[in-house]
Amino acid sequence: MKCLTKEIWMNVLRRRQIISIHRDVEKLVRESGVREGIVLVNAMHITASVFINDNESGLHGDYEKWLEKLAPEKPHSQYAHNGAEDNADAHMKRQIMGREVVVAITDGELHLGPWEHIFYYEFDGKRRKRLLVKILGE
Amino acid sequence: MKCLTKEIWMNVLRRRQIISIHRDVEKLVRESGVREGIVLVNAMHITASVFINDNESGLHGDYEKWLEKLAPEKPHSQYAHNGAEDNADAHMKRQIMGREVVVAITDGELHLGPWEHIFYYEFDGKRRKRLLVKILGE
Amino acid sequence: MKCLTKEIWMNVLRRRQIISIHRDVEKLVRESGVREGIVLVNAMHITASVFINDNESGLHGDYEKWLEKLAPEKPHSQYAHNGAEDNADAHMKRQIMGREVVVAITDGELHLGPWEHIFYYEFDGKRRKRLLVKILGE
Repeated sequence: MKCLTKEIWMNVLRRRQIISIHRDVEKLVRESGVREGIVLVNAMHITASVFINDNESGLHGDYEKWLEKLAPEKPHSQYAHNGAEDNADAHMKRQIMGREVVVAITDGELHLGPWEHIFYYEFDGKRRKRLLVKILGE
Repeated sequence: MKCLTKEIWMNVLRRRQIISIHRDVEKLVRESGVREGIVLVNAMHITASVFINDNESGLHGDYEKWLEKLAPEKPHSQYAHNGAEDNADAHMKRQIMGREVVVAITDGELHLGPWEHIFYYEFDGKRRKRLLVKILGE
Repeated sequence: MKCLTKEIWMNVLRRRQIISIHRDVEKLVRESGVREGIVLVNAMHITASVFINDNESGLHGDYEKWLEKLAPEKPHSQYAHNGAEDNADAHMKRQIMGREVVVAITDGELHLGPWEHIFYYEFDGKRRKRLLVKILGE
């Protein structure tokens, strides 16, 4: 079994931000030398998601509004979690968008549909954040 | 390590449709010869989900109404993504229901609870669509 | 390849209940002897979730209220699934929180961020329930 483990750090400038990590994952899959296997990509923070969807800015703005409707940030006082914290909404948004993705590796490449694109979505940023890429196979 | 990779094409007649893929996955697990491992089943489209829940038509109708309430299709103009497209809602519904499932294989069979049933859920159909089954183990 | 398979039974006292399973998973990873691999942890019931988030009781209460807002239990009559059953809402809540998590194992330990904590979330309890831990690697 071959294995590659890599934490990727990012400087997340805004509170909420979608960051493409597709090329990074693609590159690591090639580096790993795995021909048949899987790659697990997950946020290492509980206020963030890794998800696969369209690389289209209009949709990303739609997600922003939609998640704010389903789990509004304000008023902060509506959540018991907020006291020292103000990020309860971020813990909810991340559950809708998901913590991780698992993607197949076939013939040494990510095995994805034509529009599938891998993103990190931070809901409580303005600081350095990281994600984990774990590749396993042969 | 043993490995089986299979794309399954389906003709999805309706815009939104739940399709059982349980028997297909079960059959592929047996074909693979894997006794201990995992199977990854994922949609290859960003407007669709693979999920595990009850094989009960009442519940499937409830999902339909519920998802339409959380992420309404219309008016199409409410979403920035919709211009050439009219499927922004489909990209949201898929995030709630999830892109993929990972299921354990034990003693050569899917290791599931008694009511767990694997489905493909399309939110922007009326054309041919596909999913991926990737089996890994020994 | 090393492999460990374990079903864990729990006595779930309340209809809705969040139960920490973090130490159990941690212990099984050590027992497995796997140094590099993954662990799949999934509910074996279709009215329950396994998820990773904060071990903080205020947030858990917030989840409770939030899920009840997105997928209210009552009136039971609003769901076609409810007849003999009264748990349609539980099948929805579980889709938001997710069925399973896949976590990396690195150097023989769960590879998690500092606040990641693994929970089982039951939405239709008051009876014995179980989850599955499947560990694979080398």
